[in-house]
Amino acid sequence: MSTKPSAGTVCGPASPTAGAQTRLHPLPLGQVRITSGLWHERGEANRLASIPRGLDRLHEAGNLRNLDIAGGLAQGEAEGRIFADSDVYKWLEAAAWEYARTGDEQLLANQLSVTEVVGRAQAEDGYIDSVVQIRENKERYRDLPHSHEHYVAGHLIQAAVAQVRATGRRDLLEVAIRLADHLAATFGPQARDDVDGHPVVEMALVELYRETGTREYLDLAEYFVSARGRGLMASYGREPTYFSDRVPVREATTVEGHAVRAVYLAAGAADVAAETGDAELLAALATQYDSMERGKQYITGGLGSRWEGESFGDPFELPTDRGYAETCAAIGGVQWAWRMLLATGDARYADQIERMLFNGFLAGVSLSGTEYFYVNPLQLRGDAHPEHERSAANGRRGWFDCACCPPNIMRMLSSLGAHVATTTDAGVQIHQYANGTIAAGDLQLDVETAYPWDGRVRVTVRQAPTTPVELAFRVPAWAAGATLDGAAVAAGDYARVSRTYRDGDEIVLDLPMAPRLTRADERVDAVRGCVTIERGPLVYALEQCDQAEGAPVDDLRILPGAPFEVEHRPDLLSGVSVVRTTGRVASPPPAARSPYSTTPADAREEQAGREVSLVAIPYYAWANRGPQPMRVWIPTA
Amino acid sequence: MSTKPSAGTVCGPASPTAGAQTRLHPLPLGQVRITSGLWHERGEANRLASIPRGLDRLHEAGNLRNLDIAGGLAQGEAEGRIFADSDVYKWLEAAAWEYARTGDEQLLANQLSVTEVVGRAQAEDGYIDSVVQIRENKERYRDLPHSHEHYVAGHLIQAAVAQVRATGRRDLLEVAIRLADHLAATFGPQARDDVDGHPVVEMALVELYRETGTREYLDLAEYFVSARGRGLMASYGREPTYFSDRVPVREATTVEGHAVRAVYLAAGAADVAAETGDAELLAALATQYDSMERGKQYITGGLGSRWEGESFGDPFELPTDRGYAETCAAIGGVQWAWRMLLATGDARYADQIERMLFNGFLAGVSLSGTEYFYVNPLQLRGDAHPEHERSAANGRRGWFDCACCPPNIMRMLSSLGAHVATTTDAGVQIHQYANGTIAAGDLQLDVETAYPWDGRVRVTVRQAPTTPVELAFRVPAWAAGATLDGAAVAAGDYARVSRTYRDGDEIVLDLPMAPRLTRADERVDAVRGCVTIERGPLVYALEQCDQAEGAPVDDLRILPGAPFEVEHRPDLLSGVSVVRTTGRVASPPPAARSPYSTTPADAREEQAGREVSLVAIPYYAWANRGPQPMRVWIPTA
Repeated sequence: MSTKPSAGTVCGPASPTAGAQTRLHPLPLGQVRITSGLWHERGEANRLASIPRGLDRLHEAGNLRNLDIAGGLAQGEAEGRIFADSDVYKWLEAAAWEYARTGDEQLLANQLSVTEVVGRAQAEDGYIDSVVQIRENKERYRDLPHSHEHYVAGHLIQAAVAQVRATGRRDLLEVAIRLADHLAATFGPQARDDVDGHPVVEMALVELYRETGTREYLDLAEYFVSARGRGLMASYGREPTYFSDRVPVREATTVEGHAVRAVYLAAGAADVAAETGDAELLAALATQYDSMERGKQYITGGLGSRWEGESFGDPFELPTDRGYAETCAAIGGVQWAWRMLLATGDARYADQIERMLFNGFLAGVSLSGTEYFYVNPLQLRGDAHPEHERSAANGRRGWFDCACCPPNIMRMLSSLGAHVATTTDAGVQIHQYANGTIAAGDLQLDVETAYPWDGRVRVTVRQAPTTPVELAFRVPAWAAGATLDGAAVAAGDYARVSRTYRDGDEIVLDLPMAPRLTRADERVDAVRGCVTIERGPLVYALEQCDQAEGAPVDDLRILPGAPFEVEHRPDLLSGVSVVRTTGRVASPPPAARSPYSTTPADAREEQAGREVSLVAIPYYAWANRGPQPMRVWIPTA
Repeated sequence: MSTKPSAGTVCGPASPTAGAQTRLHPLPLGQVRITSGLWHERGEANRLASIPRGLDRLHEAGNLRNLDIAGGLAQGEAEGRIFADSDVYKWLEAAAWEYARTGDEQLLANQLSVTEVVGRAQAEDGYIDSVVQIRENKERYRDLPHSHEHYVAGHLIQAAVAQVRATGRRDLLEVAIRLADHLAATFGPQARDDVDGHPVVEMALVELYRETGTREYLDLAEYFVSARGRGLMASYGREPTYFSDRVPVREATTVEGHAVRAVYLAAGAADVAAETGDAELLAALATQYDSMERGKQYITGGLGSRWEGESFGDPFELPTDRGYAETCAAIGGVQWAWRMLLATGDARYADQIERMLFNGFLAGVSLSGTEYFYVNPLQLRGDAHPEHERSAANGRRGWFDCACCPPNIMRMLSSLGAHVATTTDAGVQIHQYANGTIAAGDLQLDVETAYPWDGRVRVTVRQAPTTPVELAFRVPAWAAGATLDGAAVAAGDYARVSRTYRDGDEIVLDLPMAPRLTRADERVDAVRGCVTIERGPLVYALEQCDQAEGAPVDDLRILPGAPFEVEHRPDLLSGVSVVRTTGRVASPPPAARSPYSTTPADAREEQAGREVSLVAIPYYAWANRGPQPMRVWIPTA
């Protein structure tokens, strides 16, 4: 048994090699500690509720039994989806990062016992996918567009890399290496020219290369990235758009098709570009990112506007009610943005991570950590009927038939600290603000803040090298008017202070936290005439139960000029700042036969609607008091 | 061989028995002749292009070969969807109505030869579904939620009823009777308690009862209507909403789930209510119709707002870009409305039929009659990417893998004349206006009109009984200001003139045809701040190729106060009236990174956009010059 690495040396997910072409370098996971505040609380719910309960769910849903059957320890049919194993691997990855964070020995024991189950299921030649091994008569790779066999392998490899980094144990890594060797022997330009319908293995193989130094894994990742857009899905009779297989990655100018697939692929391609120094590939990914942010992303950071195919829509097709915005897509979006941030050092990607984490991602899990949204729309009407398990009208659910999101949330929250800060030769960059500590070599910082409720971030130097060092603070693009030690700093970039620091030095960043009304480009037809309340990094929403006298959310209007009032409510929704402003209740629509009428809109009638106080809560916290009408985009009066 | 019935005696689809509880009675198909104008031209395209080409398509796609295989005349695997036979039957039905209209002997020969193929495929005990017979190892009714076996049977029965009514030939009717007897022996309260996932057999069985007098068929239809909402789909592990199986038909207050299924079921239930005199069932259907019209119908009459499940959305969820509005759903909508009209005599249902026929339905077929839309959205953006066969961004297509719509359009157009007028003891009701003749007993009328291009309808009495008779003219709800012989008449009702008519008497109805701007209820979020141009019964649309200087449709705004100019263009799109008005081209959105901004909307900048002439064409005619940007709802400047 190997020794547990000290927390300060545990590399987190996506740790480029020293030779990688990146501007920024991640900090080891344990070098950032979040000790209080919103992310600490979400991390505790993850540790105390999500992860333990997640293991129970994997037992109950049969995922672990599938592996037992494949390993010869049980008899029976496979349960669940073809990619059932991947949920186990995402849980294992979460458990590993969580162990690095907390050193909980029970969590180590649990992951090692699950690892044993996995190891036993592996075939002699390294192949492993329990559902295929049981259900498909062991016929491998018969329908790669839908079989998810590489996808499952990718999650196993990611879990193995996490395990060895976090625990020092190579148990799962050995399984992963055998599996990766099998893949490398089976697929590629000199073997079978084929690719999985669902990317993720690309990121995983690059990480395995980073961990083991085996160049073959990087080559295979590069092959899988290059294999797309050459007709492989079409050769199975599949329409290629859904699979990100219509256009070669290097030629694509936007994201399309299944959102999670698209962003996982892009993140993997960014990993490949970093390790191979492929500037052309990186540039293509930046173009694609631009296009996504410009016309295919919700204000919550949510990605994917269509239920049909869980996919990106056309540019500016961003419906609120049927927005899909899968929780996994927000996670993949963070993974892609993080890799772009490392590669470019551009603050916009850190802004994007903030937007996705605080809104589209965090809405995916209940405050209790036990229930999940798969789909994250920006509106729920009063008489919405939930006919699908995933419908938000059901409220969050304990688990899903397709349970990709819950363990994905777990691994994201467990490794969140890895996304807070980076280093360069010049110094340290702080991308995300949370109360805690940051250590980078000789430099140790305390970060005091009540962010995102308050915009003041006080950084105190606890230890510093004797030479000058640059501290870089991200000033979010929304934070016009921000100051650093009282001096104005530009929003949408890093404010950098380079000097020789001494113990006890303080730097104070002040981000203006006045609520603001945000509107969308005219081409976003779905929200014409509407605005959103934002405050700091948080998108706000009107939820029915907060509105005075039960004024229906469907009929609320906002008065754009009205003042805001902010109140922090420690008692509400695990502690949130509530934003109040003034609006009106539109007259309920006339009981006409048809909703269409040639009568001109009677603006006066609307204005005659009674004035009400609108109460907005952070979007992420909605539906924690039961599913109910909600809207992010509010029509103006 | 029986004798061909004279056209004047051919009952059309949905012909209630003398004892049925209906206010209005349909006219025999041949008693209404449409001799020129829009519906005549569409009928000719149907006769000369759609129907002949349709038979080729059924050969090419393998539908007829499936029946040949089942009949022992060929060998091989079944091709196409599980319900492939139904496309053949819809074609047979179209051919029958068309034969009644035109007496084309080749069409008779073709339908009899197809009928022979069908007859040979039928099993000894009456069962017939060639795909099940071939592909499913003859295992019948294994998965009724999805097998469509009753659905296929329903279309066979409808075709058989059409054939016997139109041609006098009982060939297909004998097949249908054997099939219906098999169904009656197999399903029902005393046999297997089960129901098909896709309604249509209900309408068919009532019609077979009407044709044969066999009460058992009506009873079975009534059973199938009553069987829903009792958990049968759930017993197969299916979510019931999609199948209209969540709530019993008598208790339902709205439509939900798969739109075509929902409206076919409602139409069948209306047939049952008519024949059984079930006023409670009829009242429930009226409530459901209200709810549909109030919040679940597009201005085009289109039904079904979701691609996911081809289904109705929540109330007021009516996206323009992703509106599904399946062509078949518009047809089912007409069928339901027609039955409600017969039952109640309420002009609103005739208004509804007009709206659906001229817009949501007619857009489903190209002017050439050779290409079809499956999905009929109300907006296509400039950079829409067609990743699905059904996507409107592909333009209309010659056929579909799932080819339910094309032959459905054919049978609707072939039997359109049956929906023009009805009789009561008092007289004749004219519901739809088209140039031609109407005969009802002793009364013969000439109808002269260029409707829908012109609002004048001149009815000349060619023969009249010597006793008083009431002529009732539908005055559409949109036709405020209409006059009958110069006297004001109320819109949204029938204008009735009861007197003793003489040969040569003329009655002139004038419907005001000024273009009008229509807006939607505030709860229809998708079109907030937009208006539609309507003229007469037609919904208009802006199509890219008509706009001056290529101003992008995506950026066009309309000036609500601006005057309209109407020009009839016989040269354009088989002859349409074009509506011109004034708008502006909004500045293209700034090349910002994100579409979201806290900058207040700069209305002045928008108004500074240059003024342009907006050119609108009837929605039904769009995409006949290639797929291109189009929008029905236009933002106001």
